[in-house]
Amino acid sequence: MELYFLGTNAGLPTTQRNVTSVALRMLEERRSSWLFDCGEATQHQILHSPLKLSRLEKIFITHMHGDHVFGLPGLLSSRSSQEGSPPLTVYGPQGLKQFLEVTLGATQSRVTFGLDIVEHAGGLIFEDEQIKVEAAALEHRIESYGYRMTEKDRPGSLNMELLREWGVRPGPEYGKLKNGESITVDGRTITPDQVLGPPKRGRIVTILGDTRPAPGIDPLAAGADLLVHEATFTDEFADLAQKYYHSTAVQAAEAAKKAGVGELILTHFSSRYKDPEQLQPLLDEARAVFPNTQLAMEHETYPVRPAQDREKD
Amino acid sequence: MELYFLGTNAGLPTTQRNVTSVALRMLEERRSSWLFDCGEATQHQILHSPLKLSRLEKIFITHMHGDHVFGLPGLLSSRSSQEGSPPLTVYGPQGLKQFLEVTLGATQSRVTFGLDIVEHAGGLIFEDEQIKVEAAALEHRIESYGYRMTEKDRPGSLNMELLREWGVRPGPEYGKLKNGESITVDGRTITPDQVLGPPKRGRIVTILGDTRPAPGIDPLAAGADLLVHEATFTDEFADLAQKYYHSTAVQAAEAAKKAGVGELILTHFSSRYKDPEQLQPLLDEARAVFPNTQLAMEHETYPVRPAQDREKD
Ligand SMILES: [Zn+2]
Ligand SMILES: [Zn+2]
Repeated sequence: MELYFLGTNAGLPTTQRNVTSVALRMLEERRSSWLFDCGEATQHQILHSPLKLSRLEKIFITHMHGDHVFGLPGLLSSRSSQEGSPPLTVYGPQGLKQFLEVTLGATQSRVTFGLDIVEHAGGLIFEDEQIKVEAAALEHRIESYGYRMTEKDRPGSLNMELLREWGVRPGPEYGKLKNGESITVDGRTITPDQVLGPPKRGRIVTILGDTRPAPGIDPLAAGADLLVHEATFTDEFADLAQKYYHSTAVQAAEAAKKAGVGELILTHFSSRYKDPEQLQPLLDEARAVFPNTQLAMEHETYPVRPAQDREKD
Repeated sequence: MELYFLGTNAGLPTTQRNVTSVALRMLEERRSSWLFDCGEATQHQILHSPLKLSRLEKIFITHMHGDHVFGLPGLLSSRSSQEGSPPLTVYGPQGLKQFLEVTLGATQSRVTFGLDIVEHAGGLIFEDEQIKVEAAALEHRIESYGYRMTEKDRPGSLNMELLREWGVRPGPEYGKLKNGESITVDGRTITPDQVLGPPKRGRIVTILGDTRPAPGIDPLAAGADLLVHEATFTDEFADLAQKYYHSTAVQAAEAAKKAGVGELILTHFSSRYKDPEQLQPLLDEARAVFPNTQLAMEHETYPVRPAQDREKD
């Protein structure tokens, strides 16, 4: 499980950074990636990345501002030209459906895979045996959501040495034990608690849309191993942040601290910060409040690590 | 007057080429540029070009396929963030208006300049004292147009030596003579035909949308100094071209030859031709029919030169 940033700029593209998109890669976990937001030229960024359009399983839109959605119709069209692309679901606020129907309709774009468009207003968005996704409203000029991905706990590791000693070979019995069933081998009953280590805690990743500091953030981010939070401005421009419904790096750090997250990644930087060096103050200001902070850099990979303190529980 | 190619690929972007867009720069002539088609990430290409969004005066859409229009909403939004951008008109087929209204509306994009959207079905599209634009239908899977820009003849050069001899200083009198009026200086009447060289013939540029060979092409291209024609395939794939309503390089060259144009530029290349070297057969095949042919290369400038033979008239 890792994050790969495709766009980290606010509002419009610059020569240095593209508009917003980030992929949650879960190749080991579910052989697919999820995309969060899809600004214009996200598909171009993907061309220069290890990501594959056909491997995209879900796209989550945080809000309908152009810098977060204008890349969607093109990405879906290009994915259609790759034969045998599996179905894909796009989740987002009201307006998403009409936006896609009109853009794909007016251009007579043929979508060759199963495309499901799900408009939501927060709550439980998706759940299967591996992961669940919840959304909650933030505070922006337009309806905007954050997404909280909770990986389910996985069975612990089997004590292979002991099992070998007891004459149990790798095979279906191992699966049964992992699933919590007892087995009987040569008349001996083996229970899971004899050979199974503690369950591996599922990780929690929270990815927010554009927002001011808002009450919705804390429940979304509480105890997350990794939080992606917008940081459009340095503290100097706190007034602008307030006015345009954005956050400063300090506000992002305060949210991370309050929610007790493991790690914070800042993204969605104002175009006024042109070069990578100009982003340093954002990082410095955030780290003064929440030390385990990083800047999102495009085409960089950020592994989702279980937060240390929670691992000790 | 020169062409600057921003995108030359068909269907989808590759790591080498972007989807379709070409600018007609008329900085000397009217201090502005016109854009023809606007595939996704055209604004990104402009960031890496000498073009300025604020200097865009008109955008002409040849047809509503996604690879020709998905960059429009983002480009218009970004242009809005540049204060004091002058008005802009977008011309295109039916469907353009709804496409822009829904994409800009659903994303609550604020357009800060006068935006005029003109849907047309061919004919005379625009005319002022400098230039006129005519459109005619081509043959594609979807309604598709070509545009013919006819620059009006400009007055010839004044014979400065003679005027100086006759005691006429540079000033308003020069303008009158250029406008075809006689003037009287020290009792002497000077008529324009005494001091004005032959009028400079206006140039003709024809830019076509996606098309099969079609009867509409010839009147659009007849006697043009420069023709931009799609050439999706080499001759080997003439069947595919026919099936998907595209042209081969040979068909483009045949159209250029029939219309007696000065110069042909091929664009809109299939993604199957990955590297620049793989485009060479397209050029070779076209030149065998029409020698004065070039390949459109992104971020290259192509001056619009008066065709030699017509200059001699
Ligand atoms: Zn944004
Ligand atoms: Zn096309």
